[in-house]
Amino acid sequence: MKKITILGSTGSIGSSALDVIEKNPERFQVVALAAGQNVSLLKKQIEKFRPKLVAVSTKKNALKLREALTTKNKVRILYDEEGLKEIASLPAADIIISAISGAAGLMPTLAAIEAGKDVALANKETMVIAGEIVTKRAKKKGVKILPVDSEHSAIFQCLQGQQHKNLRRIILTASGGPFLNFTKNELRKVKLNQALKHPRWKMGKKITIDSASLMNKGLEVIEAKWFFNIDISNIDVIVHPQSIVHSLVEFIDGTFLAQMGIPDMKIPIAYALTYPERIINDLQPLNLVKIVNLEFRQPDIKKFPCLGLAYAAGICGGTTPAVLNAANEIAVSAFIEKKIDFIDLPKIIEKVLVLHNSMKAPSLEEILQADLWARRETKKIIERMIA
Amino acid sequence: MKKITILGSTGSIGSSALDVIEKNPERFQVVALAAGQNVSLLKKQIEKFRPKLVAVSTKKNALKLREALTTKNKVRILYDEEGLKEIASLPAADIIISAISGAAGLMPTLAAIEAGKDVALANKETMVIAGEIVTKRAKKKGVKILPVDSEHSAIFQCLQGQQHKNLRRIILTASGGPFLNFTKNELRKVKLNQALKHPRWKMGKKITIDSASLMNKGLEVIEAKWFFNIDISNIDVIVHPQSIVHSLVEFIDGTFLAQMGIPDMKIPIAYALTYPERIINDLQPLNLVKIVNLEFRQPDIKKFPCLGLAYAAGICGGTTPAVLNAANEIAVSAFIEKKIDFIDLPKIIEKVLVLHNSMKAPSLEEILQADLWARRETKKIIERMIA
Repeated sequence: MKKITILGSTGSIGSSALDVIEKNPERFQVVALAAGQNVSLLKKQIEKFRPKLVAVSTKKNALKLREALTTKNKVRILYDEEGLKEIASLPAADIIISAISGAAGLMPTLAAIEAGKDVALANKETMVIAGEIVTKRAKKKGVKILPVDSEHSAIFQCLQGQQHKNLRRIILTASGGPFLNFTKNELRKVKLNQALKHPRWKMGKKITIDSASLMNKGLEVIEAKWFFNIDISNIDVIVHPQSIVHSLVEFIDGTFLAQMGIPDMKIPIAYALTYPERIINDLQPLNLVKIVNLEFRQPDIKKFPCLGLAYAAGICGGTTPAVLNAANEIAVSAFIEKKIDFIDLPKIIEKVLVLHNSMKAPSLEEILQADLWARRETKKIIERMIA
Repeated sequence: MKKITILGSTGSIGSSALDVIEKNPERFQVVALAAGQNVSLLKKQIEKFRPKLVAVSTKKNALKLREALTTKNKVRILYDEEGLKEIASLPAADIIISAISGAAGLMPTLAAIEAGKDVALANKETMVIAGEIVTKRAKKKGVKILPVDSEHSAIFQCLQGQQHKNLRRIILTASGGPFLNFTKNELRKVKLNQALKHPRWKMGKKITIDSASLMNKGLEVIEAKWFFNIDISNIDVIVHPQSIVHSLVEFIDGTFLAQMGIPDMKIPIAYALTYPERIINDLQPLNLVKIVNLEFRQPDIKKFPCLGLAYAAGICGGTTPAVLNAANEIAVSAFIEKKIDFIDLPKIIEKVLVLHNSMKAPSLEEILQADLWARRETKKIIERMIA
């Protein structure tokens, strides 16, 4: 029986993870759940999965949740950052699913590692912002960090039983998002609801916007660097609109291994929880014959400059990826609030990157400072734009 | 330095293997070569690779070769089946490339295994005819049998680091051969030179005809059963005209791993020789973006009945696969000699299969008897047809 804590249980990944857990009661048990604002969904999850401990974002939400729960479902309720850290380091857990969106996922993930827990990592920002620190600490503690992102799970699977020195490059596939075939001019007029319609994957708002701008793929490039200990220059992105090939690796002899399947996050989530085992699911299997064809195209960095910005930040390294990520988080929020246009996203992020004095081999504190600085600068730039 | 013996050095696989060896003189050394009739090519190979020992098919060819060689290239020359066995079990070799075409490859391959040599197996008939005996003896002797067929090499690579119990099925890809889009009526009029034009792979005559009839894929299904210890019912064939995906595996969670690359036998040959290492080559790498698309189709067993016959023989087991193979070898020879039509191939083979009394768990002797019986019966059927 594997005991599981989920950070971000009411989000898209958290819900899918609970789905996997519910279907495999003989394998998995939920010991703790952490959510942000969605108290009503968390209440239902508590009733169904009976965790020992839960956390929400604020004291207000904690009180709301306490009131909502019936006597027989009483559970210890924590809140704020400290509560989240306590949840992440709960001794009873075997593995933590880190699925909080954005930079907020970093500190609880580090807390889980410090507590010696394996981590199923869906929060790519953890690796983007502090990949060097995170991988070093995980190594020191002897804990496994298992990828949940479909692309990184794919690569992880392709690399099983292979020698690292034989790896030539990693090729991350990108669906291309809803605007793949838009002209630059059409991109100018893009509305929020269009950006929120991903053609292949059902995901949260933030990551869906990131997928539309290709920033998501850019963050994944930096994530891959740390997950697989490979230079950014050996990580390529290829547009694959069918989202059947979830990513590929190329070896020095010209051999490719590709991982394929239907686009459903429950599969990589389950694999991260059961690795090196696999479990049967009730999903419709992929029918290769029904796929009309599989295409691969070069991404258009002129049309989607966020991808280029992420590559640049990944190569700069140091605090720059944290700044890229923070600027993107703030800019995407502004887009979701309809304060800026879709094509403003890369423009704003680039301005912040240009202003930043990157620092090499930063400490965690310095990374968090850079993140805060970038958030402030991005907000200023946006305010000036809309003034 | 890996010391290599090649059985079938003047054939397509043998020549490609020597190409790989020539380009990696710091890794490989040829210790022995065996060829059939092509004395002039073998002479050139001897001059270039300086083996300690060679073999040809007959005493006549041995004398011809001795005369052709200059004094400084003198080498011990063996001939006939006994010579081949001696070559196969030469103590100096680390690995034997078994690349003789047809059932004739079985006995020398067994001799290599008995001598405790690893085998890079290109001769699929060895597994088709006597897979059970071959795999058992290899296990007992602790020798590795490494696949050279591009499909089996692909599957072998996909299964590295994976648990066998997680394997749901194997999917062998087939280019579909030159007649993929022919109607049944067009197949009636097929000429030999059309059948010899494979759209993707450069190979010997016999295997090229087998590819056109899909018998090659059928033999590969039986070969896969033994290589990967999996039931025939869990081995599927899918037509993939681009020959970029060399085969796939599906795991119990619906995940597929696919091995891809340019269609060049030098890659799987090198992998079999260097496994688990890989070596760099000078081949043009695969450019995914340049591929227009990748398609997968169901094979048409009505149009290509040889595939269905092979499945049937694989399921029957015992001596039946040996009979299938022997009947096919004789029928293909008759087609190459223009004695029969292309569409006669499955008809003849089916007649022989119907006549055969299959024997379960046969000894090697019983397999060889069944093989001989099938050859005689097939010849009789062909003689009656053309009379």
